[in-house]
This record gives sequence, structure tokens and C-alpha cells, in this order.
Amino acid sequence: MNEDIIKSIQNILDHDNQETREKLKELFKNEVFIPRYSISLKEERELAYKRLKIICENNVISTHDFGNNPCRIFSVHEIVGQMDGSTATKMTVQFNLFGGTIFGLGNKKHHETYLDSIDKLDTVGCFAFTELGYGNNAVEMKTTATYKHENNSFIINTPETLARKYWITNGAIHATHAVVFARLIIKEEDEGVHAFLVKIRDVNMESTHGISIWDMGHKIGSNGVDNASIGFNNISISKDSLLGDISKIDENGVFSSKIKSKRGRLLFLADRLLSGRLCIASMMLGAAKYTLETAIIYGKTRKAVGEDGKSTSPILDYQLQQRALMPLLVKTYAYNFALNYAKDLYQNNKEDKQIEKLILCCSIKAILSWHNERTASICRERCGGQGFLSVNRFGEAIMGSHAGITAEGDNKVLMQKVSKELLTMYKNNKAKILFTNILSKFPVLLRLTYGFTFKNINNPGVQCKLLNFRKELLISKLALRIRDAKKPNNSIFNIWMKEESDTVQQLAHSYIDHVTLVETIKNENKCDSSVKIYFNKVRNLYALSNIEENLSWYMTQGLLTKHQSRKLTKLSQLLCSDLVKYSGDLCDAFGIPKHMKTAPIANDWIKYNDFDNKGELLESARIW
Amino acid sequence: MNEDIIKSIQNILDHDNQETREKLKELFKNEVFIPRYSISLKEERELAYKRLKIICENNVISTHDFGNNPCRIFSVHEIVGQMDGSTATKMTVQFNLFGGTIFGLGNKKHHETYLDSIDKLDTVGCFAFTELGYGNNAVEMKTTATYKHENNSFIINTPETLARKYWITNGAIHATHAVVFARLIIKEEDEGVHAFLVKIRDVNMESTHGISIWDMGHKIGSNGVDNASIGFNNISISKDSLLGDISKIDENGVFSSKIKSKRGRLLFLADRLLSGRLCIASMMLGAAKYTLETAIIYGKTRKAVGEDGKSTSPILDYQLQQRALMPLLVKTYAYNFALNYAKDLYQNNKEDKQIEKLILCCSIKAILSWHNERTASICRERCGGQGFLSVNRFGEAIMGSHAGITAEGDNKVLMQKVSKELLTMYKNNKAKILFTNILSKFPVLLRLTYGFTFKNINNPGVQCKLLNFRKELLISKLALRIRDAKKPNNSIFNIWMKEESDTVQQLAHSYIDHVTLVETIKNENKCDSSVKIYFNKVRNLYALSNIEENLSWYMTQGLLTKHQSRKLTKLSQLLCSDLVKYSGDLCDAFGIPKHMKTAPIANDWIKYNDFDNKGELLESARIW
Repeated sequence: MNEDIIKSIQNILDHDNQETREKLKELFKNEVFIPRYSISLKEERELAYKRLKIICENNVISTHDFGNNPCRIFSVHEIVGQMDGSTATKMTVQFNLFGGTIFGLGNKKHHETYLDSIDKLDTVGCFAFTELGYGNNAVEMKTTATYKHENNSFIINTPETLARKYWITNGAIHATHAVVFARLIIKEEDEGVHAFLVKIRDVNMESTHGISIWDMGHKIGSNGVDNASIGFNNISISKDSLLGDISKIDENGVFSSKIKSKRGRLLFLADRLLSGRLCIASMMLGAAKYTLETAIIYGKTRKAVGEDGKSTSPILDYQLQQRALMPLLVKTYAYNFALNYAKDLYQNNKEDKQIEKLILCCSIKAILSWHNERTASICRERCGGQGFLSVNRFGEAIMGSHAGITAEGDNKVLMQKVSKELLTMYKNNKAKILFTNILSKFPVLLRLTYGFTFKNINNPGVQCKLLNFRKELLISKLALRIRDAKKPNNSIFNIWMKEESDTVQQLAHSYIDHVTLVETIKNENKCDSSVKIYFNKVRNLYALSNIEENLSWYMTQGLLTKHQSRKLTKLSQLLCSDLVKYSGDLCDAFGIPKHMKTAPIANDWIKYNDFDNKGELLESARIW
Repeated sequence: MNEDIIKSIQNILDHDNQETREKLKELFKNEVFIPRYSISLKEERELAYKRLKIICENNVISTHDFGNNPCRIFSVHEIVGQMDGSTATKMTVQFNLFGGTIFGLGNKKHHETYLDSIDKLDTVGCFAFTELGYGNNAVEMKTTATYKHENNSFIINTPETLARKYWITNGAIHATHAVVFARLIIKEEDEGVHAFLVKIRDVNMESTHGISIWDMGHKIGSNGVDNASIGFNNISISKDSLLGDISKIDENGVFSSKIKSKRGRLLFLADRLLSGRLCIASMMLGAAKYTLETAIIYGKTRKAVGEDGKSTSPILDYQLQQRALMPLLVKTYAYNFALNYAKDLYQNNKEDKQIEKLILCCSIKAILSWHNERTASICRERCGGQGFLSVNRFGEAIMGSHAGITAEGDNKVLMQKVSKELLTMYKNNKAKILFTNILSKFPVLLRLTYGFTFKNINNPGVQCKLLNFRKELLISKLALRIRDAKKPNNSIFNIWMKEESDTVQQLAHSYIDHVTLVETIKNENKCDSSVKIYFNKVRNLYALSNIEENLSWYMTQGLLTKHQSRKLTKLSQLLCSDLVKYSGDLCDAFGIPKHMKTAPIANDWIKYNDFDNKGELLESARIW
């Protein structure tokens, strides 16, 4: 590939806010952004704070972006996530969960007082949502905000240990304010969870009287993030701390709300969890690009036994390495296309696309954090001992992906939500459900109806039909099972949670897999012919890898014969070995500049080992 | 289950040296063994050293065990691996790689001088085998030991950066001695790699003149281990530093060796890598038991949304949790049985079992380290946020498993070795190879020949035949492909490394999967009837999970129909939900005492969160 083609590809991957991205990467030339490893927890946290501070001082991200350019926020997450997961995590809480909530729910006074200060990191915020015992059932959270009409205030209280706010990012050290979620109690009525802006530290950064903030200490990753467990002992806050104009308490102390259901109120107020999923998905994408490029570069320079028995063969020439890394490379591309689509959907925010926005935000976060985990673990393994040195950055990526898997909703729980919405969407299409189900019993008829022929298995249309049919049949099967739920001694809860869990998960996967393929095909169709030949390879291997991963399912449905499934594997192997030739260029198109590629094995790693480097990137050990 | 049954099961799992195991667990009551997290690299390494020192002072492990009771060494690795991977790693180098080599290859004088001192950790050793550039092709290593007849010495030299000894455990801080592997050069002849005992530090722990020892610094895990990069600048060592009596240099400076091939000499001298794989497999098993029990206990006490919408249902009641954890539980049992078999094979060391010993040591290390990685990652994920706190110990297990995947040979390279040996074993059985291959083309005939009927799919004999057939057919396919290699323009190297990599890996898996099932069945058959009902469930789910994981393969071979494969999945789901009832007891049988279960979520985790625990296990935060 020539430079122009690589640049064109980068333009497609980095589909928005390219200037901001470049500005940010330039910032990372500052010494503060050079990775450090053997430092104390305290230093690690200060480093993440310092890095975030520099980012904030350079106007690359603002809470106001939620008004006119949310994509900018997501893109900044991708680039910062590529540099340091801890900084990105502190940033996502500051700008999305905290700042975004103030932007979205605050009144004019809140905006005037806080937004600029948040952008500059003078006001540091946290999002006190999750409780120790109710992280998996937020609507049941126990913290209370009891309205006292006599002095126009709320009393915030933590009734039990299980109700302590838990995992609160920025809470242990840096936050001055918190958006606190609590059940609004008024005249002994529980009006459900509402959000309140609470000052948690004074000018000396001492915690406010009545608030206990406990440092959660050492974590398995992202230790630059300071997480806290926070408890409130009947602290009083003013009436105008209530955020959002959906619920009001009038001058007579009478409560009213535009939203009737308590669950609805919570969902409205916690809306930033949705954009938060795109923030996390973007961080995950950034990290996956980094680790993958590192492993692929190393694979080209690391030699092992060749045909002559000498150490003459780059390990990337081995099929073993190719079969491990190439599917990860095409998935990274495909998920990038899907994420771009999700970001656009979020930004455009059309009335008729609300459900799609919801399930896409949930599933793209899930699929990208899992993908990042697999990418980091497999790349670590394929880089052997070198992969085990912190300085080569696989450890951060593995642990960062675990944070992503759990944050802003456990992946598997989000996938349940996706399947639930899909079922609801199809609920009224009973004929289709039955038809799909009947069709599935007659594979020959099915092939005819959908027009599958194996000889066209490389055809995007055929691939798309296969993935789409998988989704539709899973919907159909699940819908019919739910119908059974109406029989005695059976409940939807039972079927959902105790009998069809595998199908529920598979369905959500099949949905995002299909969307991903559709978006990949769209990008293949609309790009220049110079780029198309590469996107064609990417799309083809993505689709075939996906079918291969679900091979037994397709066989069970009679959509692939024994003979065809053997051929499919062979085809997929050939595509992997073909793609290797372009893998370096495809990684170049990730646009990671030289000064960010600090991992020694993404550089002249022999030179790095010429001297006593102490496993760090000291002045003398900078080889890039 | 009553206590007696649990105890009986534990007796089977802990199949040897039970007194030593109990003594070791008692030792762990010492304060030093309480896990600590937010400490410096220096402290972490000193802690691991201190822990190892206490173990050494209490006569639970000795280099002499290689003479009469090697199983004791492996069992100690399991228990120490359960407590702290760093301590276990320092121990395995001290007692197996270093001490074991001195025991196995040292002469009487070496034994008298060093063995007791090694046992007491007064002499601390390392194993300078791997080189930066030749970790994946040791026979090509570049360090030289040039014999100087005039002063009865060898000159050890590192000719280039790629030849530096790399990843040398104990090297950065604690080691006084090293077994150094180097090419013996005599009269300008290269006699291949030999082993030498070299003192690397003086009484003040300063490195000997001419030896550069560089600390490799921070790693993604096991940071209690001090790894070094070591280089030799023409240092001189005495003639009697040469280890092993296979090669000799007589009084006239004439070299002779009992082993002709250079590869043969290396394999003989590096024999401890084989026992090392059982050491690592044991550590991995210990860690997997720990993380799994933690996740299962938490699953019983962590509540989430129940049928009434309240947080009333233990998460382990969800099928989602069961399908994630139960297959890991039965695999842990099954691999335990297989490891016991491998340990016996090693200990009995029969002449006619040498190849089986070799491939079993390789494959059990691989399968158990991968299993530990999956177990730790999945358990981390299924414990959500709690899984992300260091104090709950999933991070150590994830990263420790990565160390295990790479140490003592990259898993995938070891699997290649296993498949190579399997092919050699079957080489002379051409009729069988052809017969198996022909049979595979006629599934009906195949079913008849092997006597498969799906209605007996729960039958151990049928399951065993399926797994065995998988192994045999993969051997047959690969053998026929290798036969093709003799055609022009094709080489075995090409087929092995560039065309059939998937099959090579699958074959080695199918071998260890089959051995594991055979051993699981043996244990099921010979145990008491009170235990048998549980072992029956374990074996059945192990076998069905394994078939399920390879479902598309069995379908491709025509061994399972579409209908049967659906039924198999259903069966497997039912077995998971059935096993949950016994999962607590099955974990109890791991025999992990209360004082070792330090993870708060394996205890009263609400109480742990009642106070400012700082994420550590401070005096006040000990809830067990």
C-alpha cells in the first residue's frame, strides 16, 4: 500500500473530529505521557490526574460537546484510551457521567457555576450511582434523600453498608463534587431514585462533615484511578441540588413528576450511562488497536526456527501466529465501522431510532470490551515472554478490558437487555416469527427462500443473509419459548433466567454481529477502489470467521453441510495467510504516531536490551 | 454431602503427600503469608523471598525428593501456588530448575557442597537457560563456554545482546549461583550446549566481575519474582563446573560424550524442564481451585434481581452463572485426575513410558495453564466489580496463568511437540492410519465399528470412544498430509508450520482431552459408592462439555446429527443446573483451609465493607 491509501483508510476509521485527534496525539509528546511502571499507587494516581489536567487545559474535550458534537467526546476517549486507560477512566467520569449529567440535567445556574470549571478540571466530579449491594439492581438502591420542607433541604443518608456508594471513580482523592443518586422521600412517600448535586470536599480537600470517603485501594488494573466507597450520615443539602426538571417540589412542598414510573425516572436521570457505553467502547477500540499493532510488528521482527533449523523465520510467517492474529485484526476494523455507526446514531438522536440507539450502545460496549480482552490476552500469549513485561503494555490492556467488561453495566446483563428489546420489537410480527420457525425445519426450503448457495459464500449479500437469518431464527425461537411462559408453573423470569440463558446471549451476539457486518459492507461499498480491495479482504475474513465461530449452529440448522463446513475452515485459513501481507499497512492506518509506540517490541527491541533498562522507559532507554 | 464424603473426595484429589500438604497449610497461618497489595516492587520481592525462606526452614520440600518422592515437589507447588504465585515461581526455580539440576547432574562434591544449602535457601540459584533471541530455539543459543586446557578452565562469554540470558528468575536480587547453559567450544569445535555451575555473586551479594546483571523490572504479574537479564564478559570458571557426566574432557584435553547428537545432549541436560512442567501444572491447578471456590461462594451470597424484582436471588441461581462456572469446576476435577496420573508416570519413570511421560508433561502444563487463565478471567467477570479488587485475588490468577502459559515452553510450541511425538508413535501403524481415514468417510460404518449410539451418550465408554476417535482421526489426517510432503515443492516444515497448524494444535488437544477423560473414568470406577454419584456427574459434564466445545468437528465427521447436537447442548445445560447443588461441597473438597480463604468475597464481604479497609487485609480488616 502506498501512503495515500493508508491515509484514506485512516480517514475512514477515524470518521470524525480528526483535527482534535491529531491535536491530542501531539499533546502526548509531553514527557508526562511517557509510561511509567514501578511507581507507587499514590504516584500512579497523581500521574493520571496530571495527564488529564493537561488534556483539559488544551481544549480538546468539553461538556458542551454534548450539545453540538458528542462524537468528539467519544473520539477523545479512543485516543486517550490508547495512551492510558486510567487517564481515560478518570476523564470519562469527569466529562461524561459527571459533567454530562450536569450539562444534561443541570439548570442555568448549575451550568454557569460548573461547566467551565469542569472543563478545566477545577471542579472534579464523581458519579455516585452504584451501591455495594445494588450494583446489579439499581432501581432498588437504598440511599435516601428525604425532603424537609421546613428548611427547603434534602437529607442524604446511607441506611446500611450495602447502600454505600461503591467504586466511585475520582472519589478517593480528586473529586470535589458528586452527582448522588438517592430515593427521593417526601411526606413518607418514596418517589424513586433522583439525582442530586452534592459538594463532598471543602477547599482543603477534606471530606465534608457527615460524609465518609474510603479509598478502595489496589485493583487488578487501572490503578491510576482513585475509587472510593462513600457513605452519607444524614447530611443536609439545599433544595436546588435536585437535578433535572422532570420532577419538581413546589412552594407548598408538593411533589410532581413528568414521568410516572419510578423505573422511567431512573432511566431518564441516568441517561449518561448510555453515552458512557460509547465512551468505553471507544477506549476499548483504541486499546485493541495498540496491542494488535504491537503484536504484529513484533511478529515481523522476532525470529524463530526456519526450514534450515536456524532462527531465521519471522514468527508472523507461521500459520499459528496468523490464525491467532488476523481474525483479531479484521474484527478490530469491523467493530470500528460498527462503532462509527453507533456514534452517528447517538449524535443524530432521531426520535424513531431510540431503541436502536439503546441496544447498539449496549451491545457495542459489550462486544468491544470482550474483543479487547481476547485481543490483549492472545497478543500477550503470542508475544511470549516479551508480552509479560509491563513495558510492552499487554497487561494494561488485559486489565483495562476487564474494567470495560464490567463498567457501565455488566456485559452479559447488557446483552440480556438487548435481547429483551429485540423480542419486544418483533413482538407484533407474529406471522414472521412463526414463518421463520417453520422455515427452520426445512433447510432446503430455507436455502431457497434466502437464496444461499455455498459457492457464493464469499459474497457479502450471502454472508449478510446468513448472519441475519441467525438473528431472526434466534428471535423466533426465544419468542416461542416466551409464549410457553404463559402456561401454568412457568414464568417469563424462569425461562429467561433459568432455561434459555444461552439463547438470550446468542441472540444479542447475533444482533451486533449482523450490524457489524452490515456496516463493514457499507464501508466496503462506498470507499475508493484503491481501498476497496483491502476492505474486501477485511469484510470477507470477518464474515467467515464469524460463521466459523458459530459453525455448529449453522450446521445444526442445516445451512452448512459437513463438506461445506470443512471448506469454510480452509477458506478462512487461506484468507488469514493472504491478509498477513497487508497487516502492517492495515495497522499503520490506525494512525498511532511513533512517539506513542513506546512498547520496545514495537520498536528496535534488541537495542532496548543493549543496556540496563530496568524495565522502564528512562531517558536513556527511549528507542523510538 | 456429609463431611466424610468431602474428606474422601479430598483424599482422591490430593493423591499423595497429604501430610506435607497439611503441614504447609499450617505454616500459612504465619502473618507473613497474609496477602498484601499496595506495596513497592522491592517489598513485594522481599515478601516472596521471606515466604520461601519459611517454607525452606520447615522441611516440606527438598532437592533430595527427586530421588525418592518427586510427587512431593509437585504437591508442594500446588499448595504454594494456591497461596502466592511469586513465591511458587521462586521456589520452582530454586528446587526444580536449579536444585534439581544440581541433584541430577552434579557430582558427589557438588552434592555435598550445595544440596543442603539449597534446601535451606542459603545458596539461592537460578537457571540461565533462555536467551533473549533464542528462547524459542534453544539449541541455537549463542553463549559460549570455551575450554582452556592450559589452566583447566572454561571462559563463559555472551557474544551479542540476543545471547544475553533473559527472564532469569531469582537473578535480579537473590541468586548466588546459576546453572548456565552455553555451547561448549573445545579446540575450536562446537560440541553443543552444556550446563555449567557458575557463582554469580560474592558474599556481599555484589555481582562477580565480568557478569552484568540487569533487573528486568516491572511485569504484568508475579512481581514478587526478581527476573534478570544476565551477560558474561569472558569470565573464567574451573573445569569441574561442567555438570553431568555425559560429556567429559580428559587429562589431555580430549572431549568425549556418551550422547552423539547435540540436540540429544541439550535435551538430557535440560531434563528439569520436563519436571518443571509438572511443577507449573500443579501451581496452575492450585490457583484454579482457589479462584473457582471464591467465585462459587460469592455466587451463593451475592443477591440480584429475583422474580419479585427485589434483590433476593443469589446470582448462582441464574443459568448464566451456572453455564459459566460449572464446566470450569468439572474441568478442574478432571485435570486434577490427569495430573495425578502424570505425576505417577513421572515418579515411576518406567523405561517403556518415556514418550508418554514426555507428551503428558507437555500437554498437561499447557492445558492446565490455559484452563487457569480461562477460569480466572471468567470468574473475574462473573464476580463483576468485586472481581476487580486485588484483594479478591483474580488478578494474580489471570497474570499468573499467563506466566504459566509461557514458562517452561510456550504452550502452543509444546502442543506441536506432542503432536509430533504422536505421529511418530503411529508412524509404523500405516494400516490403522489408512483404515481410520477410510472409516471417517462412512459415518454409518464408523458408528457401527465404534459402537456409538446417541442414546448412550451419557455412557463413559461411548464418550471415551468419541474422544479417542477424534484423536485417531486427527493423527490419521495429519499422517496422510505429511506423506504428501514427500511430493516436490512441499516440505514437512511447510505443511507443519504453514498449512496444518490448526490440525497440529487440535491433535495435541484431542490427546490430552482423551487422557483426561480416561483418568476421570478410572477415578469414577474405583471410588466408593458414596463418592461415585458425584464423580459420575463430574465425568459426565466434563465429557459432554468437551464434545460440545468440538461440536462442529463431530458434526463434520457425521458422528452427531443436527438433532443430536441440539440434544447434547440441552443435556449439558441440565447437568450444569444439577451440579450447582453440589458445587459448594465439591469446592470444599479442594481442602483450602479457612485461613487461606482471605478473599473478602469468599467470606462475609458485607462486614469487610463496614469499615475503611483500604483494599487490604489489615489487622482490623480480617474477617475470616
